[in-house]
Amino acid sequence: MGITLGPSQYGKAEVRVVTVDRSTARHVLRDLNVSCALRGDFSAVHLDGDNGHVLATDTQKNTVYAFARDGIGEIEDFGLRLARHFADSYDWLTGARVEIEEYPWTPIAVDGAPHDHAFSRTGEETRTTVVTVDGDNSHVVSGLTGLVVLKTTESGFAGFPRDRYTTLAETDDRILATAVTARWRYAAGSVDSASTKERDADYAVAFPSIRATLMETFAVGYSSALQQTLYAMGHAVLEAHPAVAEIRLSMPNKHHFLSDLAPFGLDNPGVVYSAADRPYGLIEGSVVREDAPVADIAWRGTPGFC
Amino acid sequence: MGITLGPSQYGKAEVRVVTVDRSTARHVLRDLNVSCALRGDFSAVHLDGDNGHVLATDTQKNTVYAFARDGIGEIEDFGLRLARHFADSYDWLTGARVEIEEYPWTPIAVDGAPHDHAFSRTGEETRTTVVTVDGDNSHVVSGLTGLVVLKTTESGFAGFPRDRYTTLAETDDRILATAVTARWRYAAGSVDSASTKERDADYAVAFPSIRATLMETFAVGYSSALQQTLYAMGHAVLEAHPAVAEIRLSMPNKHHFLSDLAPFGLDNPGVVYSAADRPYGLIEGSVVREDAPVADIAWRGTPGFC
Amino acid sequence: MGITLGPSQYGKAEVRVVTVDRSTARHVLRDLNVSCALRGDFSAVHLDGDNGHVLATDTQKNTVYAFARDGIGEIEDFGLRLARHFADSYDWLTGARVEIEEYPWTPIAVDGAPHDHAFSRTGEETRTTVVTVDGDNSHVVSGLTGLVVLKTTESGFAGFPRDRYTTLAETDDRILATAVTARWRYAAGSVDSASTKERDADYAVAFPSIRATLMETFAVGYSSALQQTLYAMGHAVLEAHPAVAEIRLSMPNKHHFLSDLAPFGLDNPGVVYSAADRPYGLIEGSVVREDAPVADIAWRGTPGFC
Amino acid sequence: MGITLGPSQYGKAEVRVVTVDRSTARHVLRDLNVSCALRGDFSAVHLDGDNGHVLATDTQKNTVYAFARDGIGEIEDFGLRLARHFADSYDWLTGARVEIEEYPWTPIAVDGAPHDHAFSRTGEETRTTVVTVDGDNSHVVSGLTGLVVLKTTESGFAGFPRDRYTTLAETDDRILATAVTARWRYAAGSVDSASTKERDADYAVAFPSIRATLMETFAVGYSSALQQTLYAMGHAVLEAHPAVAEIRLSMPNKHHFLSDLAPFGLDNPGVVYSAADRPYGLIEGSVVREDAPVADIAWRGTPGFC
Repeated sequence: MGITLGPSQYGKAEVRVVTVDRSTARHVLRDLNVSCALRGDFSAVHLDGDNGHVLATDTQKNTVYAFARDGIGEIEDFGLRLARHFADSYDWLTGARVEIEEYPWTPIAVDGAPHDHAFSRTGEETRTTVVTVDGDNSHVVSGLTGLVVLKTTESGFAGFPRDRYTTLAETDDRILATAVTARWRYAAGSVDSASTKERDADYAVAFPSIRATLMETFAVGYSSALQQTLYAMGHAVLEAHPAVAEIRLSMPNKHHFLSDLAPFGLDNPGVVYSAADRPYGLIEGSVVREDAPVADIAWRGTPGFC
Repeated sequence: MGITLGPSQYGKAEVRVVTVDRSTARHVLRDLNVSCALRGDFSAVHLDGDNGHVLATDTQKNTVYAFARDGIGEIEDFGLRLARHFADSYDWLTGARVEIEEYPWTPIAVDGAPHDHAFSRTGEETRTTVVTVDGDNSHVVSGLTGLVVLKTTESGFAGFPRDRYTTLAETDDRILATAVTARWRYAAGSVDSASTKERDADYAVAFPSIRATLMETFAVGYSSALQQTLYAMGHAVLEAHPAVAEIRLSMPNKHHFLSDLAPFGLDNPGVVYSAADRPYGLIEGSVVREDAPVADIAWRGTPGFC
Repeated sequence: MGITLGPSQYGKAEVRVVTVDRSTARHVLRDLNVSCALRGDFSAVHLDGDNGHVLATDTQKNTVYAFARDGIGEIEDFGLRLARHFADSYDWLTGARVEIEEYPWTPIAVDGAPHDHAFSRTGEETRTTVVTVDGDNSHVVSGLTGLVVLKTTESGFAGFPRDRYTTLAETDDRILATAVTARWRYAAGSVDSASTKERDADYAVAFPSIRATLMETFAVGYSSALQQTLYAMGHAVLEAHPAVAEIRLSMPNKHHFLSDLAPFGLDNPGVVYSAADRPYGLIEGSVVREDAPVADIAWRGTPGFC
Repeated sequence: MGITLGPSQYGKAEVRVVTVDRSTARHVLRDLNVSCALRGDFSAVHLDGDNGHVLATDTQKNTVYAFARDGIGEIEDFGLRLARHFADSYDWLTGARVEIEEYPWTPIAVDGAPHDHAFSRTGEETRTTVVTVDGDNSHVVSGLTGLVVLKTTESGFAGFPRDRYTTLAETDDRILATAVTARWRYAAGSVDSASTKERDADYAVAFPSIRATLMETFAVGYSSALQQTLYAMGHAVLEAHPAVAEIRLSMPNKHHFLSDLAPFGLDNPGVVYSAADRPYGLIEGSVVREDAPVADIAWRGTPGFC
């Protein structure tokens, strides 16, 4: 009954790289958090402490900064360049995973016009990508996290089963609030057969479009359950974006409870709520294209529910 | 040599109250975090466990929700209503401090138009106020926190003294980045002599104007030191806003270090930087109107440097 | 080309339940954070907003509190009771996942003796379990997180490949520090065939023993790489605990850099270090028993690298 | 009506310095977070961007590491050495504030004995000091933060006033839990007249003794209010420690609510509680020695309520 090494990976996490494109007076600022992980044959170091196969995580960090010298482009493409470089660098490396978060900045308005080189951070929302190279295959799972949305009406929750432990009242009007984490996988070949420039254009166009689709779908219509809203959001993305093979959504139900003001002689017709921290509902689901090949490797190492 | 009770206060912290004004189809959403503290004669409870003077913190929480039933108005005015209510409620209470954070939300755009009742959270930036009632006097210190700004050029640091421990090179071009916490005190009588409606209008106008002044002043001109920028920002606010008696600014210097790419055979003409977490410079300063009476009580309990 | 619902789950996350056993003068305090997720046929709610299959997350929360009335026992057993209850409650439910964090408390010492009913929180370290019921099968993955350890010597890093981007010097003496997250899966049948009391005893004995094994193995011997240490730790656990089928370890390399004091005319023979936040190495690996059946479902929804 | 510079300070915050004393086989590990702030005449930089008076924050960081080369000693003494060095370094500097957090580590037990050079982090609790040098005077405010304590009985809350907004029921048995932040000021001359070695001995003895006093006083006796407990804790410290001139305590009331299990047909005789995050009570108070001179400057820049 042997004991042996199972799956492993290692890399440098949270490399904070910021670039400035000064090629025109209007500077372009990019702000990334890059995490690399290499996969391959690491048994010698695990079993014997032999580092012959261990490209140092410090080297991985250096590589991120060096590659940034040529410009970032879209984060998907930057991740692909890095992951491909690592996977191709030594024959004992079979793959790499590069995860990137991008933080948005907006030019500061001065006298009503955007300033050339002064910026402010825009929100907690983060654009993400996870690029996986696995041998000759590559996968791109892009997304966003921290998109906090709320609707003040057009949401209810009723018709649920009632067991011994059920005390919740039904409602046809409540506040619905969540913080969306979405990750969508681009179908293989949907984007990466084009030139770098074309890929970048595609990713650059897709992101704001998918983001808008998610927000608009959340906003419109009546929500009978957060599950219904989640599915509608994912479905709308797949309908509008043929390049997307599947999408996974994780949406906490950030509860807002109507305050009971009756003890103070006051009514409360949907005016005053308390926002709760914990516990919270957590709704997670995926929407998939039936004919799209699955790609489990694309999701390996990414927190989620599947 | 007696041992005795010194200053004390107590209250309910972080009451998360959300209100919806549904009086028109376009809902108005407000999202606050309210912390109350009462001041007065609490010696009986401290020394003997006699709660006769202890208005329960649970009651304070209830009061926040009950008062929200009538609408919030500007947070400064909501704070004043609460603080005045507490300070006037029992003769053993000599004052109250109410601190409010407000989180901004923006209507979601659907087909290019702002949706009536669906919103997204806008950024990490928070509008703040600290209202202090002390006997017959009241003080309002408003502000913002989490305003993250960066300029990619027009910043340097040179001419500083060099002692045994100095290794830093001078520079005339660097990235300057900070997360502004600003708190400004309105002069007594500058706002609170008007009607509620007028006060609200004044506070409502002042906030975005001061915020814009801070951002614009950060953006323009050459910065020889973060201290110079800090003072310029505060000075501009006082110049433009006669109602502001003083302003205090706390601005971490969020270092961005130019990456050394020479080992990889690459130059780096201001393109690639690493963003550091810790340590960071921390620059704190105040700008005051010379003829304005000081008001230490207005700042009691507020984290700061003075 | 249809678009359809993929995997989904939902539940109540972060139910904070605290229990006191007052059956003797020496109270027993338990402090848990419980997250539930149900799995099954939820297509009606996702596609049509029909909540007939949606046991409310509020009900799940109530169930946690109600079940706690009978005592917690070991968290593994409490999780199994909850997960089995949910999975068995309705025929459309095929499984459940219950994740529990337990926070340790220690009696306060008064006059050298442990107090009966006053406690202090002991550390950031958290005991964890993830229980998965899937039809008739159940799986238990227990672990710990936040175990921060450091060795001041007997650690090096050398013999790694040097490519164009490698600048790191080799070293045979460095500080090695990490924050261990470990999750080990109990083999099916290894524990859960016994009575509740026996199961509890087994889990109760296993946890501190495994924890001690992890710490001792980290402490002893020379580490040529964090990978070697990780594997040794996992291997030692499997050797000592036949009930454990596999273990997964995630260990950030919390870098401590020797300060360069030469510019100040000082040497630094391993005395002064700066502790860095980001980036950090992240080493992840698993150690498995070769003859143990894999159980992917046991890990579904748990952050990790496999 | 002039606008002018008010109080200011600046420095390097959160310098993470770790030292190892290897003078015996049993290594001694110290882990600090040091923040410096300088005070003096900084008008030239604020008004004109002239850095002639600005000892760079980078230099301050270097100084911390260089001073650590000689060993840390007690954090109070390390802070005094640094603050005195800064305040004395240039005639335009009138003072300095050095704040230090120390994180505790414990040798790992191997075969029942403490290991020589392997350690684990002990808890979230942090020992703190704030040292202020102001001209020829120096002040030491030491403390701790993150000491989380709970008693399962011997706590009540009754006899409080009931106004229109009061709904809270009285109780004579509840869980009382808090996270203690304590800061005590050593009387001038009480410690710092001795030699470094003697001072260190005094600080080294005082800290665990005061910590034990705080915990024991929390544990014993019946608490009619958290205010009563707070005062008793502070009073006990001043009684036992003549060197302490005053103590300030900030203690959130971390509410634990008895779960209502009646809807499920269950009683709940003090068994099951839910732990709440927000809002929380926040009780703050100070205990002072009547004849001790006040020293406001010792507290400047330290978050608190006074």
